[in-house]
Formats: sequence, structure tokens, C-alpha cells
Amino acid sequence: MAHRSVEEHVAHIRSLVVPAIPTGSETVQLGAALGRVTAAAILSPVDLPLFRNSQMDGFAVVAAELHSLPVTLPVVGEIPARRGTPPTLAAGTAVRIMTGAVVPEGADAVVPVEDTTATADSVTIARARVAGEFVRDRGSDLRAGDPLLPAGLRLASRHLAALAAAGIDKVEVRRRARVVVISTGAELTETGKRAGPGEIYDSNGTALTAAVTACGAEVTFAIVSSNDELSQLRGAMLMGVANADIILTSGGISMGEHEVVRDFLSTIGGEVGHIAMQPGGPQATGVFSGVPVISFPGNPVSTQISFEVFVAPILREAAGLPAAHRQRRTLSADVRSAPGKRQFLRGRALPDGRVEVVGGPSSHLVAGLAASDLLIDIPEDTIELKEGDPVETIDL
Amino acid sequence: MAHRSVEEHVAHIRSLVVPAIPTGSETVQLGAALGRVTAAAILSPVDLPLFRNSQMDGFAVVAAELHSLPVTLPVVGEIPARRGTPPTLAAGTAVRIMTGAVVPEGADAVVPVEDTTATADSVTIARARVAGEFVRDRGSDLRAGDPLLPAGLRLASRHLAALAAAGIDKVEVRRRARVVVISTGAELTETGKRAGPGEIYDSNGTALTAAVTACGAEVTFAIVSSNDELSQLRGAMLMGVANADIILTSGGISMGEHEVVRDFLSTIGGEVGHIAMQPGGPQATGVFSGVPVISFPGNPVSTQISFEVFVAPILREAAGLPAAHRQRRTLSADVRSAPGKRQFLRGRALPDGRVEVVGGPSSHLVAGLAASDLLIDIPEDTIELKEGDPVETIDL
Repeated sequence: MAHRSVEEHVAHIRSLVVPAIPTGSETVQLGAALGRVTAAAILSPVDLPLFRNSQMDGFAVVAAELHSLPVTLPVVGEIPARRGTPPTLAAGTAVRIMTGAVVPEGADAVVPVEDTTATADSVTIARARVAGEFVRDRGSDLRAGDPLLPAGLRLASRHLAALAAAGIDKVEVRRRARVVVISTGAELTETGKRAGPGEIYDSNGTALTAAVTACGAEVTFAIVSSNDELSQLRGAMLMGVANADIILTSGGISMGEHEVVRDFLSTIGGEVGHIAMQPGGPQATGVFSGVPVISFPGNPVSTQISFEVFVAPILREAAGLPAAHRQRRTLSADVRSAPGKRQFLRGRALPDGRVEVVGGPSSHLVAGLAASDLLIDIPEDTIELKEGDPVETIDL
Repeated sequence: MAHRSVEEHVAHIRSLVVPAIPTGSETVQLGAALGRVTAAAILSPVDLPLFRNSQMDGFAVVAAELHSLPVTLPVVGEIPARRGTPPTLAAGTAVRIMTGAVVPEGADAVVPVEDTTATADSVTIARARVAGEFVRDRGSDLRAGDPLLPAGLRLASRHLAALAAAGIDKVEVRRRARVVVISTGAELTETGKRAGPGEIYDSNGTALTAAVTACGAEVTFAIVSSNDELSQLRGAMLMGVANADIILTSGGISMGEHEVVRDFLSTIGGEVGHIAMQPGGPQATGVFSGVPVISFPGNPVSTQISFEVFVAPILREAAGLPAAHRQRRTLSADVRSAPGKRQFLRGRALPDGRVEVVGGPSSHLVAGLAASDLLIDIPEDTIELKEGDPVETIDL
């Protein structure tokens, strides 16, 4: 790829990853469907409401009988909201009815309890009612066969409630993209151990696993290939292609002599190069057994920002999640930027709405990234910005 | 409670639920910590970087030796990014070094490879360097004992990465609030079955379970108490208090004669009443064995909106989630509202930024709520709004 702009590499990764996003669907129980994305439009299998029911606690009556007011009707019983079919209402009578209960055959209106005076066995009604008043007709919300939810909808609680109300207990959702995360580097050791001389803790596996999950995809597994041996990495890649739609790697792609990912990618015709971007300059890609391999540099901040810029937008889109929020803000201090490089500075929104840079442009400051809540996106051709200048920011 | 305003009931529920939010913490592995909230500030147990390392691929040198330029130095070897301690650099020599590799004792600067001309065993450098250039000092990001993450932080991938980089594999997070959800009503049947006469599907259990989960709390279990027998509900409540910090119920609190939740609450000195709100007028609360019981009406839209108005803000706050986004928008059409009631209409943002009402004010329209993306919050004293009037909206 030699040298590319960020936009060119975004387009290149898109061309590799978008076709790898699974197009199939799977069926999940409602209880496991929160946040999943509908694979197809869902039609209601039933009328909603399922039956004609009362909108109020009150008395079911025949509207036409409410003449020469006030009228007193005998109360022939009570219909609670309960399974079963109530008897047909006889002419000249009323029946006590609860909200949601079946309106009996014969009745065509409900008089709310607050508009009546009742004794144990009669009710006096002072106001006329029209047929249908306080009665919810069967299918008045939705008819069987009407669209209940559209395709491509990220399911929130209110959507699951609508499915449940229609009696649906399983839903066809898009398969999530499965991602395998491989960290490489002979300097890597595990968290929870004491690091020996020259060793650092792998944070990229943790970062990418969490970031992929937050983007609505699924991490099949995350492993560390820590001896810089091509055969070990190849083994990890073989496990990866068997278990993933997309493989993400970190480390091993710069100009050194021990660049195991670069060496692996050269065996599969991949591309290793440099993007006009800071942090995250070294970038590489390949396709192994049909699975795209997206390779980030080993530096933790570079890897995290590369993921956010190149891969997260595609995964979020596939999962029906909104794109990261972009906003113009005002700088709280002067900023210098390297010429010819798109710079993604770590920043923090101040209470006054301006934005301040956190840490320096140096890419090793993991604590600085952790203390940030946004990235400041500085164009390639900008080398200097002044306090008060507007900048584009991307929420983290 | 007789009659209360929405604000008064918000305050009442807050007084019950906030003290029930668990204050304790638990320890989780980093892999399970995404979205959890730090229980205490976390200090770095180590210096970051862990050791003095190279910021570039290049040559480690002694800066003071780069005089009478250009200077050619013998290259005595190579230091990859790999565990182990490299030998001390002898005066008058250079060593090839990779990004992230240990800078050897003796060396005090790194010359990037692009600023050199190298043969197999020597390197020619044309530009002077100052001591420390392209060298990342141990602890220059963070010193052992420095704050790494604050207390009360909702952990995103970049925070987990910072913990991992510091070698931390477990994190102390706030306990999540445990919620038990009880749906009541003798008319309720299960999804996936065919509903008989007078039966409706329980959607409130599904809705509340998903909504509680989306608010960062944990649903211990959700059950249906479907025979309107006080003894059955009491059994469910006993299971609830043994397994929850908060119990949410739906149904059984209106004016009818078969109001099982109302009957239960009366045995524990709870409050049943009416809020000046639509939908969601009937509301009730109690405290059973120290656990707050928050009782919503049975109507699915009422229950969902009640949860959003009364409980969701407390759970979101406890989970470190942002409050639901409120925004002023402009109505796309005239709206009428019942006098003396705070109305929460279901609405949808139009492409032009205005807001339209979805469905009517009637509270049974679950499909209408599912088709909405916001609530329109209409004050008690408003009875009429015109197209173009501003309204307060709450994103769903």
C-alpha cells in the first residue's frame, strides 16, 4: 500500500471488511434479543388488542339505552380482567367491568366508574354515551399481518415489549460479526504477573476485545502470540479463520527485522505500509482463507485509535448502532500538528464546551487515552491551530 | 398517596430506591468489566512505561558523541522489542534498536532510521541530537502510585486497556443493583402459546427486564403471578426480597375488586394512589422486608413509561450511564392534552428536526410505543399546543 491517506485506507478496509460481515440470521429468544438487530420486517401474527376490551374501570352498557337521563340499570355481575368469555349482556342491564377485561357481546360502550352512582345491584348513569366509547376494539392498534417492527432495527425494550404483546417469543436477528483478536510481540507478558526486564503487559487484546464487544460484534477469542515465530502466528491465524469473520492483529508490522505479522502477510499476498496518520502510521491488511486480516501497530494508543478510525464504524453500522458522535468544538489552547499527517489527538471536553488536549501527541500514553473522552481530528495539511480555533471532535 | 404530581412521585420513589442501590463492590476480571463502574480510584501499581524504551526504529547512541558531523559509528548489534536486558552500549558505538525496545545503559538518545545511512556494520548520522530524544523514560506516562482511573467511572475499552497496560487483571467495581420483575394478572398468558379468550400476552416482564438491563442493572428473575391470589403473589415477593435490591411489579393496582398488588401492599403498609400523569396514572409503592416494591399499572405502555420516568434515571445514575437525552423540539402538528395531567406522548423525530406524535394518547398502543423514538413531555397545565410550538422531548 506504500503511502495512503486515512480516507484511502478507510475505503480499503471497508472493501475488505464489509463483505465479511455475516448476512445470515439466527433465531434468539426474546430474553436474549436486547441490542440485536432484526433480520427482516416482523408482521404481527395477531390482532392487537387481541379482543375487544374496556379502557376503564366502569360499567359495560348499550349506549342507545342511555336515554331519558338519568337512567338506572340493574347490575348483573362483574367482568374482571381474566381469561374466559363473559356472558352476553342482556338488554336493559349493565355489568361492572375492569380495565382490560373482555367487553361482553351485547354491550357497546363503557361508562367510567367516576361518572356513575352505584349500589350493590344497580348503577345510575347521568350522561349519554356514544357506541364505542371507552371500548378498545380488537385490532384497533394493529391488524394481524400489519408490520410490527421493521428490518434492521436494533431491539430496545419497547420493541421487545411489542413482540411479546403479539405473543412472539423468538426473533430472527442478524448474525453478529465474529472477531478473533491476536496480539503479537515477544515483549508481551500477561497481566497479573510481574513483568520481567524488557517485558510489557499486553493491553491490545483487552482493548480490542472490549471495543469490538462495545460495537455489537462478538469476540470468539483473543490470544497472544508471544514468540515472534511465524509458525506460532500461522497457527493462531488458522484457529482464527476457523472461528471468525474478521481477524484483528496488533504489533509486528513496522520496519524492524522481527516483524512477524508483516512476514505472515507477505506469505498471503497482504499489504504492509504507512498511512499519513498519527498515531497509527504503520498499517497492514491481508485476506487469509477468505477472512480479512486487519493489522494494527503494536503501540496500544495506535491500535485503539486505528480500530476506532478504520473498523469501529463498519461494526457499529452492522450492529445498528449509531455512528460515533462528531461535533465541532473550540480549542482551549494552541496546538501544533505534524505536517502531512492526519492527527488524532486525545482530548477532553471542558465544562465551558471547549476542548483541551490530554497528554501529548506521543502515542505511548495509554493513561492519556484513558483520561480522554474524545479524539480531536486534525487534517493532514494543518500544522498549527490557535486557542479558540474550531476543531472536529469524535466522541469516544 | 392519594393524588400526587409526577415530581412528587419521582421524589418519593427516589427516597425509596436510592438507599436500596447497593453500595458494596465486587472484583471482576478485566474481560468481564466492560460497562461496569469503578468502586474506587485505581492507582497504577507500576511505572508506565515500565522501562526506558525507544520511540522509533533507529539507532541508540550517546547524544554527546554526535559532534563534528556527519559521524560514522560502528553498529554493535540489534535490540528488538523482546524480553531481556540488552548489554550496556560501549562509548563510540551505536546499536540498532526497534520501537518499544529497551534503550541500553550508556545510550541516551535514539536516531530514527530515516535520518541515517547504514551499512551492515556501521551507521552514518548527519544531525546532532539532544539527550533524551526519541527515548521514552520509565514512568514518563505515569509513576507507580499515580491515579490511573477515578472512582465512579464506567469502564470503556480505553480504560480497560490502561488497566491491562499497568498489569492489572482484576478490578473492583460497584455491585449492580439486582432487580426482580413480577408481572401480575389473571389474564396473562405466555408468549409462544395461543392466547385463549380473554387472555393477553405478558409483555411487561419482557419490557421491564430489558429496560432494567439497558440501565446497567441486573434482573435476577422475572416471573408472572397469574392467578390473582394473594398467597401466590406473596410467594413471589418472598422470592423477590431474597434475590433483589428492588422489586418492580406491573398490574393489580387500580380501583377494581381484584387488585392483588394493591391487596398485598395494604398488608405491608404500602401506598396506592394516583399520579397526575398520562399514561401511568395509577401508581403504588411499598417496602417489603427492607426491599422497595415499585408497582406500575398493568397496561404495557403505562408500565414502560412509568419505568422510564420514575426508575430508569436512578438506575442509570447508579450504573454511570448518561441520563436520557432531553431536547426542545418543535411540534409538526397541533396537540391537545388532558387538563391537570402531565402527559408523555409517544413521538418520532422527523428528518426536518420537528417532532410528530405517534399513535394517540390512549395507553394501550404498544406498537405505537415501539414505533416511537422519544417521549414528548407536556406539562400538567397545558391543554393545547399548536404546530410549531416548542416541546420538551426525552430520547428513548
